[in-house]
Amino acid sequence: MPNWSTMIEDLLFRVTDIGSTMLSTNQQQTVAEKCERLLNNTGEATSLALSREILDDYVTLSDSDKLVFFSTLATDFGVDVEALQHAYDLWKQSPEIHLARHIHFSSEPRSQELFRQLNRVPGGTATLVAMREDLLRLCQNDKRLKSLDKDLSHLFVSWFNRGFLRIEQINWSTPAKILEKIIQYEAVHKITGWDDLRRRVDEADRRLYAFFHPALPSEPLIFVEVALTSDTPTTIESILSADREALDPKSASTAVFYSISNCQAGLRGISFGNFLIKQVVEELKRELSNLKTFITMSPVPTLCKWLSTDPDLDQESRILVDALQAAELPLSDDFKHQHSEQLSRLAAKYLLDAKSRRGGPFDPVSRFHLGNGAHLERINLWANSSQQGFNDSFGIMVNYEYDLKFIEKNHEAFLTNGSIITSSSIKKLHKKMQ
Amino acid sequence: MPNWSTMIEDLLFRVTDIGSTMLSTNQQQTVAEKCERLLNNTGEATSLALSREILDDYVTLSDSDKLVFFSTLATDFGVDVEALQHAYDLWKQSPEIHLARHIHFSSEPRSQELFRQLNRVPGGTATLVAMREDLLRLCQNDKRLKSLDKDLSHLFVSWFNRGFLRIEQINWSTPAKILEKIIQYEAVHKITGWDDLRRRVDEADRRLYAFFHPALPSEPLIFVEVALTSDTPTTIESILSADREALDPKSASTAVFYSISNCQAGLRGISFGNFLIKQVVEELKRELSNLKTFITMSPVPTLCKWLSTDPDLDQESRILVDALQAAELPLSDDFKHQHSEQLSRLAAKYLLDAKSRRGGPFDPVSRFHLGNGAHLERINLWANSSQQGFNDSFGIMVNYEYDLKFIEKNHEAFLTNGSIITSSSIKKLHKKMQ
Amino acid sequence: MPNWSTMIEDLLFRVTDIGSTMLSTNQQQTVAEKCERLLNNTGEATSLALSREILDDYVTLSDSDKLVFFSTLATDFGVDVEALQHAYDLWKQSPEIHLARHIHFSSEPRSQELFRQLNRVPGGTATLVAMREDLLRLCQNDKRLKSLDKDLSHLFVSWFNRGFLRIEQINWSTPAKILEKIIQYEAVHKITGWDDLRRRVDEADRRLYAFFHPALPSEPLIFVEVALTSDTPTTIESILSADREALDPKSASTAVFYSISNCQAGLRGISFGNFLIKQVVEELKRELSNLKTFITMSPVPTLCKWLSTDPDLDQESRILVDALQAAELPLSDDFKHQHSEQLSRLAAKYLLDAKSRRGGPFDPVSRFHLGNGAHLERINLWANSSQQGFNDSFGIMVNYEYDLKFIEKNHEAFLTNGSIITSSSIKKLHKKMQ
Amino acid sequence: MPNWSTMIEDLLFRVTDIGSTMLSTNQQQTVAEKCERLLNNTGEATSLALSREILDDYVTLSDSDKLVFFSTLATDFGVDVEALQHAYDLWKQSPEIHLARHIHFSSEPRSQELFRQLNRVPGGTATLVAMREDLLRLCQNDKRLKSLDKDLSHLFVSWFNRGFLRIEQINWSTPAKILEKIIQYEAVHKITGWDDLRRRVDEADRRLYAFFHPALPSEPLIFVEVALTSDTPTTIESILSADREALDPKSASTAVFYSISNCQAGLRGISFGNFLIKQVVEELKRELSNLKTFITMSPVPTLCKWLSTDPDLDQESRILVDALQAAELPLSDDFKHQHSEQLSRLAAKYLLDAKSRRGGPFDPVSRFHLGNGAHLERINLWANSSQQGFNDSFGIMVNYEYDLKFIEKNHEAFLTNGSIITSSSIKKLHKKMQ
Repeated sequence: MPNWSTMIEDLLFRVTDIGSTMLSTNQQQTVAEKCERLLNNTGEATSLALSREILDDYVTLSDSDKLVFFSTLATDFGVDVEALQHAYDLWKQSPEIHLARHIHFSSEPRSQELFRQLNRVPGGTATLVAMREDLLRLCQNDKRLKSLDKDLSHLFVSWFNRGFLRIEQINWSTPAKILEKIIQYEAVHKITGWDDLRRRVDEADRRLYAFFHPALPSEPLIFVEVALTSDTPTTIESILSADREALDPKSASTAVFYSISNCQAGLRGISFGNFLIKQVVEELKRELSNLKTFITMSPVPTLCKWLSTDPDLDQESRILVDALQAAELPLSDDFKHQHSEQLSRLAAKYLLDAKSRRGGPFDPVSRFHLGNGAHLERINLWANSSQQGFNDSFGIMVNYEYDLKFIEKNHEAFLTNGSIITSSSIKKLHKKMQ
Repeated sequence: MPNWSTMIEDLLFRVTDIGSTMLSTNQQQTVAEKCERLLNNTGEATSLALSREILDDYVTLSDSDKLVFFSTLATDFGVDVEALQHAYDLWKQSPEIHLARHIHFSSEPRSQELFRQLNRVPGGTATLVAMREDLLRLCQNDKRLKSLDKDLSHLFVSWFNRGFLRIEQINWSTPAKILEKIIQYEAVHKITGWDDLRRRVDEADRRLYAFFHPALPSEPLIFVEVALTSDTPTTIESILSADREALDPKSASTAVFYSISNCQAGLRGISFGNFLIKQVVEELKRELSNLKTFITMSPVPTLCKWLSTDPDLDQESRILVDALQAAELPLSDDFKHQHSEQLSRLAAKYLLDAKSRRGGPFDPVSRFHLGNGAHLERINLWANSSQQGFNDSFGIMVNYEYDLKFIEKNHEAFLTNGSIITSSSIKKLHKKMQ
Repeated sequence: MPNWSTMIEDLLFRVTDIGSTMLSTNQQQTVAEKCERLLNNTGEATSLALSREILDDYVTLSDSDKLVFFSTLATDFGVDVEALQHAYDLWKQSPEIHLARHIHFSSEPRSQELFRQLNRVPGGTATLVAMREDLLRLCQNDKRLKSLDKDLSHLFVSWFNRGFLRIEQINWSTPAKILEKIIQYEAVHKITGWDDLRRRVDEADRRLYAFFHPALPSEPLIFVEVALTSDTPTTIESILSADREALDPKSASTAVFYSISNCQAGLRGISFGNFLIKQVVEELKRELSNLKTFITMSPVPTLCKWLSTDPDLDQESRILVDALQAAELPLSDDFKHQHSEQLSRLAAKYLLDAKSRRGGPFDPVSRFHLGNGAHLERINLWANSSQQGFNDSFGIMVNYEYDLKFIEKNHEAFLTNGSIITSSSIKKLHKKMQ
Repeated sequence: MPNWSTMIEDLLFRVTDIGSTMLSTNQQQTVAEKCERLLNNTGEATSLALSREILDDYVTLSDSDKLVFFSTLATDFGVDVEALQHAYDLWKQSPEIHLARHIHFSSEPRSQELFRQLNRVPGGTATLVAMREDLLRLCQNDKRLKSLDKDLSHLFVSWFNRGFLRIEQINWSTPAKILEKIIQYEAVHKITGWDDLRRRVDEADRRLYAFFHPALPSEPLIFVEVALTSDTPTTIESILSADREALDPKSASTAVFYSISNCQAGLRGISFGNFLIKQVVEELKRELSNLKTFITMSPVPTLCKWLSTDPDLDQESRILVDALQAAELPLSDDFKHQHSEQLSRLAAKYLLDAKSRRGGPFDPVSRFHLGNGAHLERINLWANSSQQGFNDSFGIMVNYEYDLKFIEKNHEAFLTNGSIITSSSIKKLHKKMQ
C-alpha cells in the first residue's frame, strides 16, 4: 500500500500549480478535459455520448490516475468564487432572506453539475457509486478530497431518498444474480454457499428483505435477515443451524432481526437501516398477526476493542478479562459456569457506560438500534461460539427490542438526554457492577 | 382572480413581522409548525408519519392558506445566516478551495432538507410536484417565493435526472389510467376521445413514446407522437385524419414528430424534450432500418403574436397581413393561391429574423428544435386549417429536420453564433424578403 | 340468409360421393387436402408451417367454403372403422376391462388429431375457437356436423379446464385492448362507452372479474360485474346510475353480481360461470371481511316468452298481462301501484312452476343460479325501466342468493329432486297464486 | 423391491371380486370412494373442495396403496359397456359416419372425466403428472394399468400441446428455484453445482432454453444447452471446461446443442424435443445472424450395449472391442493412435447398420435427431473422457447437423425408407467396414 497522503499532497501540488496544459498527454487529464468539455457544452446535443465516454474512461484508470482525476475535480471544478463573492456582497448590502438563499445556489461547485450530467447515462448511477467508493478509499483525510466527497454524498442523499427505494422480499424465486450478491454482501454472519443461503431465504420461518433503487435494479442497497421464532433466541447458532425443523410461521410469536448488512461501500453514510427495519416490522405485522415481539440478535463488535483502550475496571473484571483472553475454544461448561456472572456485569457496564469520543455509546450497533428507538432487552452470554465472535465480544450477543408503543419515547430520550432505556435485569446487573 | 401580488406582500408582512405565535390557531401555521417539528426531530423514529401528515394537510389547504404556508417556508426555513457568515469568514481568512465549497453546504436553506424529508413518504414526490405547480401559479414574481422555488427546482433537476427516467411506448396494451392522461395532457393537437387516441397509438404507422419516473409510475412526464410516412407531410390534417389507410411501417422512409407535450406543470423548466426526441430516434432506427428522415411537423405558435408587436414590415407584407386578418375560414383556393408567395416570404423573415428579448429566435418551438441541433427544413403554407392554427400562424407549419450527421454541428453553430441552419429553399425565400 | 340445411345436404352429398379428386381446384378442397397431408406426415419436421398455412387459409374462406371444409372434415376425417371393428371384436372375444378402454382409443376420429396439430401453431387456439363459432353458426342441426362439433367441444373441455384458467380483476390499470373487449362483450346491461366502463371498474365500490386462458391472453372468456352495497338492491338503475356517490367498500355488507357475460361464442357449452362466481366470492371475502351477503341482481329473460306459450293462467292474470302489454313506458306510479300484487304472484308462479321441455326451470338464468346452489331470494317489480327489460319481463328482476352455508345442500336438492329453494316471502306469493 | 406383478394380480383380484364394501376401512379405498362421489356429483357446487381432498390424500399414499388405487380406477372407472354396446348397435344398424364417431364418445372411460375434474384444482396438473410418474413406475406391464395410463397420456398430449408451451431462456436472472431444477434434471452431462451451472447459462457464448407450461410455472418440461463456437467441437470437454475464455457471440459461426434433457418422468412419451430444437434454432438465428451451422454434440448411449448383444462383427473388430474393454482410463495417446481407424469404422457400422427390434436405428439419440430431419455429420473419437462416456461408447460422440434447407427432405427419406442421410466421410468409413 503506497503512502497515499504524501502522494495526494504531491499530486494536488502538481495539478494546481503546474497547470493542466503540461499534463495533457496523461490519460487522467484527458478524462478531466472531457469533463471540462462536457460542462462547457451549454447544450445537450452530444452530452450523453461524451458522458458515457468519461465514465468508460474512468473505470479503466489505475488508482493513482483516479487520485489525480479526483484532485483535478476538487480543484478545477470547484466554486465560482467571483459569483460567490458577488452574491455575498449583494446580501451584505441588503440582508434579505432570498439573497442569503441566493448565495447557496451561486456557490454550487461545478463538480456537482458534472456528476448530475454523468448520471444521465444508462448505468451512470452505478459508476458514480463505484466512483465514491474509490474516493472514500483513496481520500485519506485530505481536506480537498473530502470536500469533493460532500458533492457526491449530497447528491446521493437526494437520489437515494427513501421515497425512491422499494422494499423487496428476497426468496427462492429471486433471480440468481441478486442472490449471489446477498451471499457476497452478508457482513455479519457469513453465508457459506447456496445451501446456507437457501436456509435463510427459503425456509418457512425465515425472511430476508432488501431495499433497491430503480437505477440499480440488481444491486441490493441494504438487507436484513429475520428469523420467526417462538421465543427470543439466546444463541446465534440456534438460528443458523443447518439441521433445524422450520416453525410454522403462523405459530411464531417473535421476529428476530439477526443480521443487517449495508451492501454498497459507495453509499457509506447514506442511512437506510432504520427505514428498512421499520418497514419490515410493518410488512411482518400485516402478514402474521400473531407476531408480538420484534427483537434483534445483535453482535457486540467492539467490546474487546474497548477493553484494549484501558477502561476503568475493578480488579475482579481485570482477572476475568485475563482468563478469557487466555481461554481456548471451545470453552468448557465449567469455565462458562465459573465466569458467567462476572461477564454479565462487565457486558452491562460496557453497554451502559462505555462512550465514544462523540458522546454516544461506544458500541456502534448499540448506537444504531438505540437511535432507532429500540431498547436494550437482554445480554446473552456464550451466544456466538465462533472464533470471530469470541475475539470481538467473548461470544456475547445482545437483544435490542423494537417495542412499537415506546419507540418514539425511547428515541426522544436517547437523543435528548442520551438515556439508554433498558430492561430491569440489565439494570440490576449494572448496579452490581458499580 | 384576486390580486395576488398585493396579497402576497400583505401576507409576508404579517407572517414575518407579527410572528407566528399570534397565528397559531390558523390551519396553515399548523402545517408549518409541523414542518418545524419534523426538522427538529433529529432522529427518524416517527418522521415518516409526521411527513405524511404534513402532505395530507397541505392538499386540503385553500390557495390563500397555501400562500401563507409558502411564505412561512421562504422566511422561516431559510439559510442559517450565522453558519453562512462563519463559513464565509473562514474562507476569507484562508481562501482555499475546500473552504469555498464549504460555504455552499453551510448555506443550504432548511426548506431543502424539509422537502427531502417530505419526499420519503410513499407518494411524496407527486405531492411535491403538485406543490411546485401551486407555488409557480401563486408566486407572482415575489422574490422570496421565487427563491423558495429554487429549492424545489434544484431538487427536481436532481431527482428527475435523465438517468432515472425510463422511456415507454404507449400503445393499446397500456393501462387505461395512463392513456386517459395522454388524452388530458396532449397540448398541441387535442385528442378528441378514445377513438382518436386509438388512431394515434394503435395504428401500425403511429407511435407514441413517453418518459416516466419510478416515483410517478402512472404519470407521463412528457410524450411525443410520431407518424411513419413515405414523405415529409405538408399538412397536419394528412396525419390526424380519421379515415386514412395505415402504411406498412416497414415501407416508411420518414418519421414525423408531430406533437410533443410536457405533462407536469410542477416540472416546468426541468427539460426532457431533447432527450426524448433523441432516444425515440434511436428506438425507431433500431426497429425500422429503412427510416431515413427524422423530421417534425411543428406549429408556429407566435407568428401572429409577433406581428402584433409591430415589427418592421414592408408595405406589401402589411397588406398581406390585413388581408389574412380579414379572411374567413375556410379559405378559398383563389385566396390561397393569391397570397402564397408573399406569405412564404413573411414566414421566412419571421423564422430567421424575429428575435426574443434574450436574443434567440422569437418562436419558442424554433428555439427548442434549433437548440437540439435540428435545422429548419421547410415552411408549409395552409398546413393547419383549424381556427386555432389560423389565429396563431395563418395555418403555417414548419418541418425541422433531425439530421443525425449534422446535429452536433448545427447545435454548436446555433449556440455559439446564433446561426440558424436552414435549407436552400428557405434561404431563397428569405433573400427575396430583404 | 340462404337455406343452409339444404345446402349442407347437397354439399355432403357432393363431398362424399363425387370424391375429392374432382374438386381439387376448389379453394376449400385445398385446405382439406393440406389437412390430409398434415396427418399423413408422420413426423413433425414441417408440420408447424403446414398447420399455420391451413389456419391462414381457413380464415379467408367464405361461409359456403367453410361449410364444405367442415363437411369434408366430418366425412373424410372420421373414425377408422376397420380399427374400430377390430377393437370391438377383440373385446367381444374376451370382454376385459382394458379391451373396452381400447375401443375408445381405437375409435378416435382423425379430425381430433387434426385439431390438436393445428393448435400447435402460435395463435392456433384462437383460430380454433373462431372455427367452432363458425361451425355452430353454420351446422344447422346437421347430424354429421354436430358430430364434428363433438371433437372440438371435447378438446375445448380439456383445454379450457378450470385448472388452466386464471382469474383477473379488470380495472383502470388493465390494458385498453382488454377493456374494449369488455365493452364489446357485455351482454346483459350494455356499456355505453369508456365513461360508463370506468364507472363499472374504477369506482371504489365496483368490481369486475374475468377468466383468462394462457393461450388467449387478451381475450376474456367470461366476466362478472359486482356492486358493493349496503343493501340488496331493488332496481338495476340504482346500480348503473351515472351520478351516484361511491360507497366505502369497507362499509359494504353486500356484494351484488349484477351482470355475467360469456365472451366467446366458440366456447358455447364449456361452462365457466359457476367457477367464476365462486372464486369471486372467495376473493371478495378475503379482501373485505365485512361482506355478509352475496346475491345477484338478475334479469328474467324469458317471462314474456313463456306467457306467449299459452301457459295455464287464471282470469285475473290474463287481464294483468293484457294491461301490461298495452301499457306505455314510463309507467305511471298509479299503474304500478294497481298491478304490483298481481304481478308479484305471476312472477312467483313463473319462477316456481314454469318448466322447460327438459324438466328444469323454464328460465335459463334461474336454471344457472339454482344449479350453482343459489336460492331464490326476492322478486323485484319495476326493477328495470328500460324498454328491453319491459319487453322481456315487464321490468321484473330477481335476486338469487349464494348463501355459502347452504350452497351444497341447495344444489343437491335441486339436482336430485328439482327442488327450488326459495325465501318464505316468495313461497307466500306462490301460495296465493294457487 | 417387491414383486410388483404378482402383487398387481393379487390386488386386482381382490378389488374386482371382493368388492369395495369390504375394504371400506382402507385408506386407499377411501380415496377411490371419494372419486366415485366426485363423479356422481352431477353439479359442481363442492367439486373443487372434494377434488383437492382426493389429491391431498393421494400424495400421502404408500406405493402399495397407490397400486390399489390405480387398480380400482382401472377396473371401477372404466367404460360404460352398456352405452358402448348401444352405440355400437346403432352404428351397425346404420353405418353412418356420425354414428361411428358417436361410439368414440360413448366409450370414454370414466377415469378420464375423473382426471379432468381433478385437474381443476390449483396445482392439480402437477399432481396428475406425479401420479402418472407413479403409475409408470408401478404398472409393470399389467394390461389394465397400462390401459389406465392411456387416459393420462391422452389427456397430457392434449394439455401439453405445443401451442400451450412457452419457450424461455434460462440465465442468471432466472429464479433460483428454477435453476436448481436445471441442476437436478440435467441427465446427459451432470451439472456439479452452482458454479458449473453459471458457466452454462451466464457466459456470453452459452445458452440454455426450456419449455414451460402455464400450469407448472416453476417446472421446466425439457431443456437444451447450447454452446456458441467458431467450429464444430470434437470433444465435450472443450465445451464443459471450467477455464475457457468466452467467445464473443457475434463472432460465433456455430451453435452446438450439447445436451438435451427431459425433466418430467410423468410426461414420458409426450414429445417436446423436436419442437424445442427447432424453436431454439429460430431464436438464435434471429439474435445472431452470423450463425451458419446448427449441430449437436451427442452421446452414443447404447454402442457398448449393442456390442453385448453379439452383433455380427469381423475378427478385427472383435479384437478392438476386447482391447478397449481391457483398457484403463486415461487412455494413452499411443493406444488412441493405434485404434482410431478401426474404432471409427466400428462406430460407422453401428450408426448405419445397428437396428432396433422395431426397425429404426438401435441408437435412441440417433433415432431422435434423424427423425427430426438432422443428418449424421461426424463421428468424434475420444470425445468424452469420462468413465461413463467410455462405458457407454468408448468415448465416442457424434455430431448431427440440422441443415435447415434439407431437414424436410431428410425427414421424409428417413421416415419413408429408413434412409440415414450422412456425410461422405462417414459413408467412406462405412464402406471400409463392409
